[in-house]
Amino acid sequence: MTDITRADGRAVDQLREVTIERGWSAQAEGSALVSFGKTRVLCTASFTGGVPRWLTGKGKGWVTAEYAMLPRATNTRNDRESVKGRIGGRTHEISRLVGRALRAVVDTKALGENTIVIDCDVLQADGGTRTAAITGAYVALADAIAWGRERKFIGQKATVLFDSVAAVSVGIIDGEPMLDLAYVEDVRAETDMNVVVTGRGLFVEVQGTAEGAPFDKSELDRLLELGVNGCAQLRDIQTTVLAAQQ
Amino acid sequence: MTDITRADGRAVDQLREVTIERGWSAQAEGSALVSFGKTRVLCTASFTGGVPRWLTGKGKGWVTAEYAMLPRATNTRNDRESVKGRIGGRTHEISRLVGRALRAVVDTKALGENTIVIDCDVLQADGGTRTAAITGAYVALADAIAWGRERKFIGQKATVLFDSVAAVSVGIIDGEPMLDLAYVEDVRAETDMNVVVTGRGLFVEVQGTAEGAPFDKSELDRLLELGVNGCAQLRDIQTTVLAAQQ
Amino acid sequence: MTDITRADGRAVDQLREVTIERGWSAQAEGSALVSFGKTRVLCTASFTGGVPRWLTGKGKGWVTAEYAMLPRATNTRNDRESVKGRIGGRTHEISRLVGRALRAVVDTKALGENTIVIDCDVLQADGGTRTAAITGAYVALADAIAWGRERKFIGQKATVLFDSVAAVSVGIIDGEPMLDLAYVEDVRAETDMNVVVTGRGLFVEVQGTAEGAPFDKSELDRLLELGVNGCAQLRDIQTTVLAAQQ
Amino acid sequence: MTDITRADGRAVDQLREVTIERGWSAQAEGSALVSFGKTRVLCTASFTGGVPRWLTGKGKGWVTAEYAMLPRATNTRNDRESVKGRIGGRTHEISRLVGRALRAVVDTKALGENTIVIDCDVLQADGGTRTAAITGAYVALADAIAWGRERKFIGQKATVLFDSVAAVSVGIIDGEPMLDLAYVEDVRAETDMNVVVTGRGLFVEVQGTAEGAPFDKSELDRLLELGVNGCAQLRDIQTTVLAAQQ
Amino acid sequence: MTDITRADGRAVDQLREVTIERGWSAQAEGSALVSFGKTRVLCTASFTGGVPRWLTGKGKGWVTAEYAMLPRATNTRNDRESVKGRIGGRTHEISRLVGRALRAVVDTKALGENTIVIDCDVLQADGGTRTAAITGAYVALADAIAWGRERKFIGQKATVLFDSVAAVSVGIIDGEPMLDLAYVEDVRAETDMNVVVTGRGLFVEVQGTAEGAPFDKSELDRLLELGVNGCAQLRDIQTTVLAAQQ
Amino acid sequence: MTDITRADGRAVDQLREVTIERGWSAQAEGSALVSFGKTRVLCTASFTGGVPRWLTGKGKGWVTAEYAMLPRATNTRNDRESVKGRIGGRTHEISRLVGRALRAVVDTKALGENTIVIDCDVLQADGGTRTAAITGAYVALADAIAWGRERKFIGQKATVLFDSVAAVSVGIIDGEPMLDLAYVEDVRAETDMNVVVTGRGLFVEVQGTAEGAPFDKSELDRLLELGVNGCAQLRDIQTTVLAAQQ
Repeated sequence: MTDITRADGRAVDQLREVTIERGWSAQAEGSALVSFGKTRVLCTASFTGGVPRWLTGKGKGWVTAEYAMLPRATNTRNDRESVKGRIGGRTHEISRLVGRALRAVVDTKALGENTIVIDCDVLQADGGTRTAAITGAYVALADAIAWGRERKFIGQKATVLFDSVAAVSVGIIDGEPMLDLAYVEDVRAETDMNVVVTGRGLFVEVQGTAEGAPFDKSELDRLLELGVNGCAQLRDIQTTVLAAQQ
Repeated sequence: MTDITRADGRAVDQLREVTIERGWSAQAEGSALVSFGKTRVLCTASFTGGVPRWLTGKGKGWVTAEYAMLPRATNTRNDRESVKGRIGGRTHEISRLVGRALRAVVDTKALGENTIVIDCDVLQADGGTRTAAITGAYVALADAIAWGRERKFIGQKATVLFDSVAAVSVGIIDGEPMLDLAYVEDVRAETDMNVVVTGRGLFVEVQGTAEGAPFDKSELDRLLELGVNGCAQLRDIQTTVLAAQQ
Repeated sequence: MTDITRADGRAVDQLREVTIERGWSAQAEGSALVSFGKTRVLCTASFTGGVPRWLTGKGKGWVTAEYAMLPRATNTRNDRESVKGRIGGRTHEISRLVGRALRAVVDTKALGENTIVIDCDVLQADGGTRTAAITGAYVALADAIAWGRERKFIGQKATVLFDSVAAVSVGIIDGEPMLDLAYVEDVRAETDMNVVVTGRGLFVEVQGTAEGAPFDKSELDRLLELGVNGCAQLRDIQTTVLAAQQ
Repeated sequence: MTDITRADGRAVDQLREVTIERGWSAQAEGSALVSFGKTRVLCTASFTGGVPRWLTGKGKGWVTAEYAMLPRATNTRNDRESVKGRIGGRTHEISRLVGRALRAVVDTKALGENTIVIDCDVLQADGGTRTAAITGAYVALADAIAWGRERKFIGQKATVLFDSVAAVSVGIIDGEPMLDLAYVEDVRAETDMNVVVTGRGLFVEVQGTAEGAPFDKSELDRLLELGVNGCAQLRDIQTTVLAAQQ
Repeated sequence: MTDITRADGRAVDQLREVTIERGWSAQAEGSALVSFGKTRVLCTASFTGGVPRWLTGKGKGWVTAEYAMLPRATNTRNDRESVKGRIGGRTHEISRLVGRALRAVVDTKALGENTIVIDCDVLQADGGTRTAAITGAYVALADAIAWGRERKFIGQKATVLFDSVAAVSVGIIDGEPMLDLAYVEDVRAETDMNVVVTGRGLFVEVQGTAEGAPFDKSELDRLLELGVNGCAQLRDIQTTVLAAQQ
Repeated sequence: MTDITRADGRAVDQLREVTIERGWSAQAEGSALVSFGKTRVLCTASFTGGVPRWLTGKGKGWVTAEYAMLPRATNTRNDRESVKGRIGGRTHEISRLVGRALRAVVDTKALGENTIVIDCDVLQADGGTRTAAITGAYVALADAIAWGRERKFIGQKATVLFDSVAAVSVGIIDGEPMLDLAYVEDVRAETDMNVVVTGRGLFVEVQGTAEGAPFDKSELDRLLELGVNGCAQLRDIQTTVLAAQQ
């Protein structure tokens, strides 16, 4: 590891300060306000009986996610997608990513014919909003499942979550692979990668994109290593937060 | 005043606990997270040079507002308006109300050819979201104007805000006029009214609706009195919050 | 009352010429072409058996309204909302207002599981279109209910309409409160108010907005008095029209 | 011609009662409320200086039309296209037809760089709404052009309208060709045809569709003959109406 | 017939080279890639059991069509209608035309409660795309019906197609009626007509429009004659193609 | 490599038959009909002078892509996105991917202020449509650039394409990593990955998703190896096709 100074003084393999305020919402069955530095995402999990029509009668549940950003989460204001009358490509793409990431650790048979919708609303954006969303959404999801179990909508012994999941961004800036990019880093990155990793250290999703120069296998390997280590730290934070009494 | 016991123990002319976290957002030129009990609205003010085309060259600025609710702000989840592809009537109506309320205390000539967009996003809803939005939006607006003045986008001596503005809901429940209805009260109200009042005690907007039985003039007068007194208390909270060093 | 001369020579407390052509439409179960001076609104009431899904099985009926304006009802042409692909905030807001106003005098239990949709289409606009719409809609509604009763969709003894409803605009121009503003007056009004009043003189809706200077309690009281008196005259016109043989 | 009795007692080659109330609208530059029996269409013509961007600088004007139907123009209510958020195929198709029909008699060079938009709103529908729309639109268009000429937006000697245009429906019912179908006839027609004919008797548009059995050349010829004769009568009505002092 | 030289050397009553590649798609129940010169339209027929709700239980099937154009089918690129979020008037109009043309030769009783959707996607456009679409769609439809019969979704003896259908464009250029206009001819045509004719020589649809000068009866007759003869040739090509073993 | 038999008899590291019909379209500046087995994608490149407004005056060009699927490209018909009025998340996501992949090998400075839009329309789908689209789009793009250079819209010596780009899908089925999945394989894959690789063998994009069990580093490595080798073969096919005289 070289002796790089990042804008905020972090080491190249260091996360920003990560906090997860579990139970932020008084309304949702599970919720978490997750912060990665100045990036703040409110994740709520809504538990309802029944499943979408296409899944009815299969004895399985459904977990899905929607991601969105408040218009002034970013440095300059963006028009609301509700006002524009259509959801942008980026929003769709991230919503799908978050949903896939969560479903990767859920046993939908054990969930039974119940639906959990996770809403991830970015209140403030400073890079890494989609990975923060996944990391916080897991906590909200875990609490919604606990809620359902307490009320006997889910079997008492069913293992709905067979693993945990977290995500982090990594990227190459000035040739140097780095963990957890803040916005000022993200816009300069030659390569940008999001990795979604389970608590056991397996990959759920690897999305690497050359924004500038294409990358080679050794750079890819270094990015994956940083991402896996970052996700292990996030898993520990999730575990601690979920262990607390509520 | 009769000896009514409200669900949360308040007197009929008592506000819920009101707090305004000024400067909640690190991105916006002005911001406030306002709470009326469990109702929580994030208000951000975005300051930009220039005005919409229809106002260009008139030497006047523009202030507008958009109101929205997170899908799980409420007790059961609502579909996102961005997903539905259209904004509902209620959302439109409240956005227009908030904008009108703010413009009533702004001298757009003094603002100069600048635009301020106020976004009011309801993070948690427990009745009175539109009046909380107006009350918080005023604080965000004041800070955005101060921001513009510091950067000389606004004249140093211009009085852009010639008064303050706050709003509160009032209603009649079981024949009894009450101040600042929580959601459980709101759904039972025979008459529901929102009053928007300036710091000097003048009306900007009076919107009273008979949800159940129509109301007579004496009931209307009692509601207005409660509302005016409530807004005076809100004005004092706004003043205190804005007096603090930032 | 001062000695004000209005553009059209009316006294400050005088309505424009109001006519209601009952049964204008050969297709609808109830209809009225209402005119307030040059403002002309075609109101049709469509009676159908059954109710929206969310109301099914509750033994109640449903009354709703839709307001719209022809593109060249106004002095300059507006794009059609169907062409723009979305309904504007103003249209939504007025549709909701008309529906609430009518429901305030309907006993939905007595209506039974039937739905009445009132369409109010502004053919020509010269101020006060929403209040004209409410006033005409009541006549169309009354006839649609009579239609349903004749055909035994509604019980013969059921009192579906337990009161009548009418509406009028009032406003302050150059400091003077006035009744029933024409368009040229409306654009100059400092305060604009719509009052919806039942035949018995009770308020259903009071919507006052300071377009210019905020208003005080005594101005509000004078506006309400003008509005209540205007609605009483409108009620008499409605009664006369509905008493005629068809 | 056989001895057919039509539902309303007309001869097979007889128009319904046709009336054109010229200048119905106080707002538009030209207007006509046209009735073909119970079919009633309000046609307004909006004259504005300038042309759409794609036509700018070519020294030509533009005439276009929009057709729509009020929700309760028909025997059962249809949802508004503004509420559905999209214009149906039928509406588009008829709007285009009306525009083409009018442009066929307009010298756009003589019109100069001005735009006339014709709105045809069906207030009551009983068959033949599109042909009634064309017939009434011509009158509104003629008055809008006169309006423009009086105000010198159009050259005093320019012949903008070099011919007139009218339209009528014809169809085959029970093997019998008939003129100007009412709705009860239209739904039973095996073949349905709309003919648009100029005052000089030339075809602008011929649209024949076999709704039931396909038709042969001799049937087609008989339909065209009926249509041409019907349009000649409509031309005479237009001429009379336009000759009146306003 | 005069001695006209067309841009591509054809006689005025001569079709372009027409080919129909039957079974182009490996996925659809019936398909054809039809070419009229450089105009190429992919027609696929999708057979499904059941009918739309409004037709359920009537013992009849349903045939419908959708027409669309790839964005770069034409000489300059057009925005996608999916991106614009709405279907244009022309697309709607042609989809409806294709559907009507096909239904004119289908016995929906014999089809039984099955639905066939024909998609006509223009891959390359050089005039006459709607008539090519109808001509190719008939072949795809015939194969989808054969597919349904083989699988016993349709009665073995039912005559679903009681005739064939083809279509061609005709037009008047420099006063000369011509068959099957290529794009360069189409844009110059004074009159443009599409004729849809059954295999037995009866008219299903006649749509003639004066783009320039209105036309008289003798011109109309000449256009119809050219169209009928062109459709007879297309019918022979369809017959040959459908007779081949697959 | 184990001795796996795939449904179509291929080896695990074997591509389907790949063909690229260069210049398929007579209208576009560049085009290619690419087939990976039964997957067929029509790629057209549209070259226009000028750039989107946000890029004006920066001396750079713009390359973007749109991906779509015909409704019956797949085994069962999907509703058109134009009819639904909105583009789905998957379509957006793939359009963005194709655009990024192409831009990774384009020097936009060398392109000058010109825009190239690549349309990738899936005519028939059998797995791997997005990777086939990228592979074909590169050929269409190369030809559009050559077209622009011939006409001097691009400098004669400018190296616009500094590398080539191709893409292929890989996945793990029954624990076995495999190259270029057909649809029947794709639906069974535990892990699905798309790799986009330049002619020089560098990564532009790596998108791996665990559809079933999460994957470990050694599986990821094997998938990347298969993908890189597959892309090298595709690059050779592209090179051969582009070397041919046109």
